[in-house]
Amino acid sequence: MSRKRLRTIGILGGMGPEAGASFLVRIIRETAAGRDQDHAPVILYSRPQVPDRTRAILHGGPSPVAALRRGLRALRDAGADFAVMPCVTAHHFHARLAAGAPLPLISLVDETVAAVRKMRPATKTVGLIATTGTVRSGLVARAFAAAGIEVLVPAPRDQERVMAAIYGKKGIKAGVTAGPPRTVLLGVAAGLVRRGAQAVMAGCTEVPLALRPGDLTVPLVDPLTIGARAAVRRSGARLRRAD
Amino acid sequence: MSRKRLRTIGILGGMGPEAGASFLVRIIRETAAGRDQDHAPVILYSRPQVPDRTRAILHGGPSPVAALRRGLRALRDAGADFAVMPCVTAHHFHARLAAGAPLPLISLVDETVAAVRKMRPATKTVGLIATTGTVRSGLVARAFAAAGIEVLVPAPRDQERVMAAIYGKKGIKAGVTAGPPRTVLLGVAAGLVRRGAQAVMAGCTEVPLALRPGDLTVPLVDPLTIGARAAVRRSGARLRRAD
Repeated sequence: MSRKRLRTIGILGGMGPEAGASFLVRIIRETAAGRDQDHAPVILYSRPQVPDRTRAILHGGPSPVAALRRGLRALRDAGADFAVMPCVTAHHFHARLAAGAPLPLISLVDETVAAVRKMRPATKTVGLIATTGTVRSGLVARAFAAAGIEVLVPAPRDQERVMAAIYGKKGIKAGVTAGPPRTVLLGVAAGLVRRGAQAVMAGCTEVPLALRPGDLTVPLVDPLTIGARAAVRRSGARLRRAD
Repeated sequence: MSRKRLRTIGILGGMGPEAGASFLVRIIRETAAGRDQDHAPVILYSRPQVPDRTRAILHGGPSPVAALRRGLRALRDAGADFAVMPCVTAHHFHARLAAGAPLPLISLVDETVAAVRKMRPATKTVGLIATTGTVRSGLVARAFAAAGIEVLVPAPRDQERVMAAIYGKKGIKAGVTAGPPRTVLLGVAAGLVRRGAQAVMAGCTEVPLALRPGDLTVPLVDPLTIGARAAVRRSGARLRRAD
């Protein structure tokens, strides 16, 4: 067999653990494979003890940068050829991490903007459901603005409800993906669509654990799936559906 | 906060990729966690290019031992404190790997025998649905025999159907977990129960991707869940349900 050698995907996970696992599952599902050997090698580094990203951005909490750098080094040491962070909020630190990183670090946010432009070139407005850290940091809004797309965010009251749905005692990070957390996200997404969003970005990787593409009247843009496809492509493995 | 430091779980995956991901999901689900930081750190090394275990055992194909040793070293280098292989067939090589391994290697098979003895001390007979490599190697039968439990395996014709359900073009390793593969496994499991099995062991880690506990009239023993719980316990994280 003369098959090309596949590159090894590094996943800098743990933010949270569910999102990392979900990203791994998407990489497998998005690969066209008839047998094990067709899948790209993957190394996942999940250390949920990394300081909270939202707290660092909003409240001057401890920075996660040193812990994330250690993760990138561990991935490189274990044989990863490039890395992805399945956590949108952590992308606030992407530029700082990518500079001088021991291996290339794909940006979920840049991949998402590129995918929206490619799939729906006429898009002018995207709604964003994300952590308050991501919303306030403006990282998604800036990336879309550079492509001429405006980002709508929930009203402050709704934003608080999104945070409770993600971080609450009975929220997504506690393993609850149906019931109240899902109802809150559905309501907030519908509100963004009413205000003119032509697509809604699941801007926190916990969101698509509770919301599904068929739930909305506009496309649900899922950076986890987009990033998984980018990683598969870059590994040299075959994508299940063509772009 | 004075919380004890959690040990890092190493997963030697890729055999196949779905089973590795599924094992990671079980580790997360079996952990009692109210927030990300309660979860144990995990490093997963998934290199599906490791030589096929069944072919090595039955047909003198290339040995997977060197590739698995490299995986264990990569896990240790990335910071894992101990490792598990979510692939029962690979446990044919467990003793050889564990001797001189760079980190302790939990045995899914030994953990499974211990769990059956603990949960159902009266068990005398267990049915086994596994790859032909696992069945012929006798590794499961020997481990149970040491605990006074007999292992029943499918008739040769049924064993061939199990292999097709796992490895076939439209089998579990190709991502098909419903329909014909599931029907075959249900029929074979029912046959083992008729012959006297008081429990059925999902002896290939692909089996519980298609069979669920409620499907049978006797317990479905799932080494992936048992192994995940063993790993969580060993990491120092809290289990969701007590043993």
